[in-house]
Amino acid sequence: MTALLAGVETGGTRCNLAIGTGPGDLRATESIPTTGPDETIGRITAVLAEHAPIAAIGIGAFGPVDVDPGSETWGRVGNTPKPGWRGADLAGRLAGELGGVPVGFDTDVNAAALGERRWGAGEGLDDLVYLTVGTGIGGGAVAGGRAVRGLGHPEMGHVPIPRDPARDPFRGSCPYHGDCLEGLASGTAMRARWGVGGEELPPEHDAWRLEAEYLAHGIAAIAYVLSPRRVILGGGVMRAPGLLELVRSELERRLAGYVDAPELVRPGLGDRAGVLGALALAEEALALSS
Amino acid sequence: MTALLAGVETGGTRCNLAIGTGPGDLRATESIPTTGPDETIGRITAVLAEHAPIAAIGIGAFGPVDVDPGSETWGRVGNTPKPGWRGADLAGRLAGELGGVPVGFDTDVNAAALGERRWGAGEGLDDLVYLTVGTGIGGGAVAGGRAVRGLGHPEMGHVPIPRDPARDPFRGSCPYHGDCLEGLASGTAMRARWGVGGEELPPEHDAWRLEAEYLAHGIAAIAYVLSPRRVILGGGVMRAPGLLELVRSELERRLAGYVDAPELVRPGLGDRAGVLGALALAEEALALSS
Repeated sequence: MTALLAGVETGGTRCNLAIGTGPGDLRATESIPTTGPDETIGRITAVLAEHAPIAAIGIGAFGPVDVDPGSETWGRVGNTPKPGWRGADLAGRLAGELGGVPVGFDTDVNAAALGERRWGAGEGLDDLVYLTVGTGIGGGAVAGGRAVRGLGHPEMGHVPIPRDPARDPFRGSCPYHGDCLEGLASGTAMRARWGVGGEELPPEHDAWRLEAEYLAHGIAAIAYVLSPRRVILGGGVMRAPGLLELVRSELERRLAGYVDAPELVRPGLGDRAGVLGALALAEEALALSS
Repeated sequence: MTALLAGVETGGTRCNLAIGTGPGDLRATESIPTTGPDETIGRITAVLAEHAPIAAIGIGAFGPVDVDPGSETWGRVGNTPKPGWRGADLAGRLAGELGGVPVGFDTDVNAAALGERRWGAGEGLDDLVYLTVGTGIGGGAVAGGRAVRGLGHPEMGHVPIPRDPARDPFRGSCPYHGDCLEGLASGTAMRARWGVGGEELPPEHDAWRLEAEYLAHGIAAIAYVLSPRRVILGGGVMRAPGLLELVRSELERRLAGYVDAPELVRPGLGDRAGVLGALALAEEALALSS
């Protein structure tokens, strides 16, 4: 019997769970609201208890989190404004409730990058990026076959990019940096700039050209720093008809032939990239422990 | 007897050679002019022949080069404007001349990152960046203990960064992108903007604040994508008194507390980072072959 694994994606509003050995063998999936840490962790462990024994758990968490295995606060939530969550020991408490099983821990977007590599649009690639463009913008990366972690974890939404104030007087919605990539191109930024959400802007609206230019700048920065073979673009904003194609042509224009553009593709796992990536983290943790 | 290794750094104007087992055990170092590929490769092999047998060779090459081990043109020079060098089979010819010894091949800046990690300012770190700010700007990276390669190799000098035309009307010196990081902050850009080279600009000149701001933008982009623990800053422009300190304070200001800043330090190997990095590549190639 193959050991069951648990994948947990903790998000700002909901937590998603998957129990099984992979997308083709899921014994259960659940989505629960993210409330305070005690209540949320209690609900997660209650679901997992129904499927005992669980051999390993993987957690893809909303940031900031401590992903440094050498750190005393590894597996904990960092400086989040979300009430009660700062310092919460996600990895320790969840693994502890399961009797101390191996635990893999990373950001939700690094998990998504690992999940897409394992079962989705990044299969077989050692060098790829997963970028989600939704309410915020986040990116995770695999380089040389491993999730990218270092001093902290990637925060690709916050790369500085050029803005021409004559063309776009909107000063950006990021509370830290104003007009960084997320401040200019997230769903939140679009709503603040245009007064309505992207889903209400018709395909011929100027908003989409500007959006594609900003995203192309961000992806160009990623390409010049990390040289991924493929960039997988998820998130609600990317569902806008024609946007992926616009981003592709803007990226080619901006790279100007200096380097080849990475392939830009949609997620193979759809909205399940994060939670299935958490399952891939569990698989990795189990392999490392045996 | 420890086997002798050869490190070769090929630069636009000169090639540097180091023969030995590490910086504390160098049997020979040489610098030869970079002319055409046949003449240059001939001179390099003549030097290496004096120290036979050589057990492995490492090459850190000026880009663009093909660093993909799965590619048919691995080890060759790419689309360089340098006469005669396009397509030159650097790795194949040098290893062939030495009787088919193991060969490590990477960009000069990835080699420098590996060299600093092995013997210099990055000792013991698995996640670091080497950024050189000279005539051009180039960056190499180690992530998870390995040099970063993917679709191609990092080209960190070309990250797009913000420029305020009201403050800096100079449109940038990069022939591909205009006002990318290299186009705004390289030694070439400084000379084009101010009419004199950085070495003639006094420390109180406005040029240095602007330079520090652009470099801080570039390093912020690197930090958000790759999260290195340390960024090692080499190259002629970085020798300007006070510049490193200015970049540090600009970087803190721009990250705005959202993530911790990577440490910014000078190279431990000085100008020898590239050639000693090539020696580290030789060491790695030998280890992988045995």
